[in-house]
Amino acid sequence: MRILILGGDGYLGWPTAMDLSAQGHEVAVADNYLRRRLCLEENIDLLFEVPDLDERTALWQLVSGHKIAVYIGNLCEWDFVAEVFKAFNPQAVVHYAEQPAAPYSMLNRKAATLTLNNNLSVTANVIFAAREFCPDAHIVKLGTMGEYGTPNIDIEEGWLEVEHKGRQHKFLYPRQAGSLYHTTKIMDTDLLWFYVRTWGLRVTDLMQGPVYGLFTDETENDERLLPYFNYDEIFGTVLNRFVVQAVAGHPLSVYGKGGQTRGYLNIKDTLNCVRLSVENPADRGELRIFNQFTETFSVNDLAEKVKEAGNQIGLKVEIQHVTNPRIEAEEHYYHPRHTGLLELGLKPHFLTKEVIVTMMGFVLKYKNEIKPNQIYQNVKWV
Amino acid sequence: MRILILGGDGYLGWPTAMDLSAQGHEVAVADNYLRRRLCLEENIDLLFEVPDLDERTALWQLVSGHKIAVYIGNLCEWDFVAEVFKAFNPQAVVHYAEQPAAPYSMLNRKAATLTLNNNLSVTANVIFAAREFCPDAHIVKLGTMGEYGTPNIDIEEGWLEVEHKGRQHKFLYPRQAGSLYHTTKIMDTDLLWFYVRTWGLRVTDLMQGPVYGLFTDETENDERLLPYFNYDEIFGTVLNRFVVQAVAGHPLSVYGKGGQTRGYLNIKDTLNCVRLSVENPADRGELRIFNQFTETFSVNDLAEKVKEAGNQIGLKVEIQHVTNPRIEAEEHYYHPRHTGLLELGLKPHFLTKEVIVTMMGFVLKYKNEIKPNQIYQNVKWV
Repeated sequence: MRILILGGDGYLGWPTAMDLSAQGHEVAVADNYLRRRLCLEENIDLLFEVPDLDERTALWQLVSGHKIAVYIGNLCEWDFVAEVFKAFNPQAVVHYAEQPAAPYSMLNRKAATLTLNNNLSVTANVIFAAREFCPDAHIVKLGTMGEYGTPNIDIEEGWLEVEHKGRQHKFLYPRQAGSLYHTTKIMDTDLLWFYVRTWGLRVTDLMQGPVYGLFTDETENDERLLPYFNYDEIFGTVLNRFVVQAVAGHPLSVYGKGGQTRGYLNIKDTLNCVRLSVENPADRGELRIFNQFTETFSVNDLAEKVKEAGNQIGLKVEIQHVTNPRIEAEEHYYHPRHTGLLELGLKPHFLTKEVIVTMMGFVLKYKNEIKPNQIYQNVKWV
Repeated sequence: MRILILGGDGYLGWPTAMDLSAQGHEVAVADNYLRRRLCLEENIDLLFEVPDLDERTALWQLVSGHKIAVYIGNLCEWDFVAEVFKAFNPQAVVHYAEQPAAPYSMLNRKAATLTLNNNLSVTANVIFAAREFCPDAHIVKLGTMGEYGTPNIDIEEGWLEVEHKGRQHKFLYPRQAGSLYHTTKIMDTDLLWFYVRTWGLRVTDLMQGPVYGLFTDETENDERLLPYFNYDEIFGTVLNRFVVQAVAGHPLSVYGKGGQTRGYLNIKDTLNCVRLSVENPADRGELRIFNQFTETFSVNDLAEKVKEAGNQIGLKVEIQHVTNPRIEAEEHYYHPRHTGLLELGLKPHFLTKEVIVTMMGFVLKYKNEIKPNQIYQNVKWV
């Protein structure tokens, strides 16, 4: 299948590209290195440098024999989008091309505006391009579990059957997010759902939880094929940050009470979920929604797990509750359904002590590269 | 009160500005004449020409003695927004500054992109400006009843208490719109609701139905103070279009079965609703939502009313069911609640035969100006 990965340079985009390529699909990646530029501008360092897409794809071809086409450009610009869609004529489009960090979106007005404009413009352009150039192509869109927020009732998989005054209606599950970034994902869903109904597009919207890890089957060939690994407070996801904090001897920074509970998944399962979605497409005129995570943990749970894993390899790990910079419930009901991807065949990789220890072993090699000033970035919601 | 009207040149913006000014409020208007530009570009003629804001405000000062400040510029540009907010320091902001037409938003990719970017950027800038320059100011935002769509259960006023598996949660009423324009209004609501919760803004979101009419208390002074009157298929609202079609001897063009039902209101009631909202502000940290209409009618109901009114003054009016260019339910349940504004003191002006006859009498004066090619514009949803 010809699969176009938008945001193919990212933490998840690049591993996804390799994974689908390894399965024998014809893969192309498009990116404008926005994430790299934002890290530069905000003076954020990665744990280790990663090569650019030309180098990565050359390396991948060397180790795998598979070629991945590269398109460098800004997907907010229609002319570039049209050029890519016409040239590659995708059968599936995996859309990761968004500013992906909640704290970045709350940094200041400029960052908020960039997040809003970038995320909505790319999604709109993908919709218009699919309609114009490949109306039968399947759009696999990365959404987020954060779209649902933390309601006091069970979170169903995308939809909610409401009974009200003796009548019934099936709605898109009502959404209420905790950051501007997450709110742009709600808007993406609004937009996709409108055009699915109107133009009969074929869309899968993956409500993904926070991802951890960095190893995939393909990175075993060469460490230079590893994804980005942000451990800073802006672009780093929580478990990855805790692992680096543990290795650096920095107390694990739990926001507030730490009862904030979310659905998590291993990066390997992100790839599996995307692959299962691509290989089992939604129907024409269908918005198919999956909740994409494998286990739920509170932040306290994660901190405890990292502490235990650290202790096992002789690290002295402390947990510190710090003032919560975000506006969020620190104790809440959380019961999200997630059966759709399991039914498609997902075999989860759970968060064992071994997984954390393996990550720590890798991070230890870069211990001297860890910059303590990255860990705290002072992004406040208010 | 110092009240800033964004989109103060529009069909509703200008009459609102005069109305609040007549009440003794200190009023400023901001606009970039986007609507005029789009009409020019799409070759759409108004029934009669209206003066620009400098002329209108000069005229208004002459007849009323009240001064209205004018800011001409693009509210998508932060520098202009900041300049206006700093200079005028509003206590209330009435936000009409959006591309307001569903058919325009469905015209083509360029029009869709303009609608999406314009509407979201202005709303975001208003939020950022309120936070930075006047955090206590009350934002009165024009939304639309179209955000709700036509669900099979009662439409409550903004919020829905859901009971699910023995638990309860109060959600923003789930929204699902029938055009890109209406979808951008859903996104506005998403955005406002997020920042109300996060920054404690003070917001009233008015879910307005289609508006008809053109006379207000202030336009009685001078016909040059009348608002725009679009009768074309792109920017004209349905009752206004039917009145012009009746006068022109064109059959009233009912889309499909004509059972599409919506909540309507007289332009005089728009002004009253906005004034009541401004003079009774929402609390800090409150998103207050009102459903703003006074009566519900199907398109068939409206066509019948226009036919009867036309017959009374000797016009021969035919009704023609044409192929529906939109994707929408042509027969559906529709039971929207609308008590909030009545409780604030709204005294509705209902759609009587007299109201339609008065509009017809006015339109008859311009009968020779009516251009038949404006009536059908061939904007299809698919």
